[in-house]
Amino acid sequence: MIIDRLQKEALEKSPICVGLDTSLSYLPRELKEKDWSLSEKIFYFNKQIIDHTEDLAACFKLQIAYYEALGLEGLVAYKETLAYLREKNILSIGDIKRGDILATQSEYAKAHLTGEFEADIVTVNAYMGEDAVSPFYPYMTEKEKGIFVLLHTSNESAGDLQELISGEKELYLHMGDLLEKWGRPYQGASGFSAVGAVAGLTYPKEFEKLSELYPNMFFLIPGYGAQGGRGEDLRPVFQKRINGVVNSSRGIIAAHVGKTEGMDFTSFAREAALLMKEDLIGWQ
Amino acid sequence: MIIDRLQKEALEKSPICVGLDTSLSYLPRELKEKDWSLSEKIFYFNKQIIDHTEDLAACFKLQIAYYEALGLEGLVAYKETLAYLREKNILSIGDIKRGDILATQSEYAKAHLTGEFEADIVTVNAYMGEDAVSPFYPYMTEKEKGIFVLLHTSNESAGDLQELISGEKELYLHMGDLLEKWGRPYQGASGFSAVGAVAGLTYPKEFEKLSELYPNMFFLIPGYGAQGGRGEDLRPVFQKRINGVVNSSRGIIAAHVGKTEGMDFTSFAREAALLMKEDLIGWQ
Repeated sequence: MIIDRLQKEALEKSPICVGLDTSLSYLPRELKEKDWSLSEKIFYFNKQIIDHTEDLAACFKLQIAYYEALGLEGLVAYKETLAYLREKNILSIGDIKRGDILATQSEYAKAHLTGEFEADIVTVNAYMGEDAVSPFYPYMTEKEKGIFVLLHTSNESAGDLQELISGEKELYLHMGDLLEKWGRPYQGASGFSAVGAVAGLTYPKEFEKLSELYPNMFFLIPGYGAQGGRGEDLRPVFQKRINGVVNSSRGIIAAHVGKTEGMDFTSFAREAALLMKEDLIGWQ
Repeated sequence: MIIDRLQKEALEKSPICVGLDTSLSYLPRELKEKDWSLSEKIFYFNKQIIDHTEDLAACFKLQIAYYEALGLEGLVAYKETLAYLREKNILSIGDIKRGDILATQSEYAKAHLTGEFEADIVTVNAYMGEDAVSPFYPYMTEKEKGIFVLLHTSNESAGDLQELISGEKELYLHMGDLLEKWGRPYQGASGFSAVGAVAGLTYPKEFEKLSELYPNMFFLIPGYGAQGGRGEDLRPVFQKRINGVVNSSRGIIAAHVGKTEGMDFTSFAREAALLMKEDLIGWQ
């Protein structure tokens, strides 16, 4: 299962997931002014970030919204970045958060686990229930793919729905129970399931609880850095075992903003990744 | 507000929303065999459907998953179909069901309400709460745009989450209450809000209830035809007033499948739309 490989990378390199949420505003002036197409500039930026941080990160995550916002040119860069990661045998997460009825979700699975936009793992929104998840099952066993389903997100209004109480527990714990059940047939040698979950680091105590409740679940953890999460929040869990990857986007890929307008942005990204690694697992 | 225009179209033409979920398998052999690019074939198919049903439909909805599944070529067809609808001044719905944290959802809003993928209205998944909805507010007032947020969907596993009981009512009614509240500042002259809701026709009695509970909510109603919904299920509500558009995809755009492999597929689509119109509002 793909999840075994992701866990292995997290153990060997670090639990960092570098978020390539590549906003045009992060491109240094020297790159912006080049006589290249928009997709070439974005791809170049991503490629440089990858080349200078790959030894420090378990995987790279592309937030597709930033690419869609640039239209077809943006999606060319999305496609090329995924192809580059594949070529280098680096694990990729397509952060697409799709969720739809069975027939439609099957199209999304095809769209993002095969063909031009192929990633190793994609994120999923299961407000529609198992229909949003089951189209991915065959890809887990036949093509070594995986998913991370939204459980408890890191944003301010996450509580509007996710924290409603039903039968004495929060809605997101019902989601967690479902994910645990759905993921059971897709557990790999590591014990983790290819049906993983997204749980924001903005609730550190809760991450401990989720880790205990769902020992076979691997987590994609947003909310580090800019959103307030810190390495020490994860230590109680990670000291027992690494059961997730921690995403940082702006913290790494925009580390140079305000400091350089030149092509040396990569050294700032690398420095930020090194500090993050130290913060996450420096106690090891 | 855009929603006034949509309601007007629904009253003047019919409450039909033609779903352009254009699967390659729907293309007749004669079209498939043409020496055109994939995007040209799909765009031609959509254009023909639009030209032959536009006088019968309030709007057209593009399910983006079918286009994403074809990669960049598919997205070229998506873009061109939206541009064609805009050119003809026909209302379009981008069925994208995006839902993410504030900064990311703002990128999705930009991606799908401006630029190459611009639609008039998009669908939204608000599992993440108001952060998934608020980035669209400025577009409602400044650019005459609207959204339909998932309330109670028409698929089999919709109940997994949406029907959990919290405080004596189903989760989707909590979602409904939130949508009603969020949409209040965006009501148009018709009384309907530019924050609409997706409610499947697979629960006819419930549609009556939702229509009473949320009198200022306009609905996008999937589940007609292939999924089991019938015109008579809507009559108790629509006889009082038309408060939604009813989507049919396969029922219209694949009406020719198994009947012709030629370019006369349009007459089957038109015939299906005429029958649907009769079924929905023939009692008028």
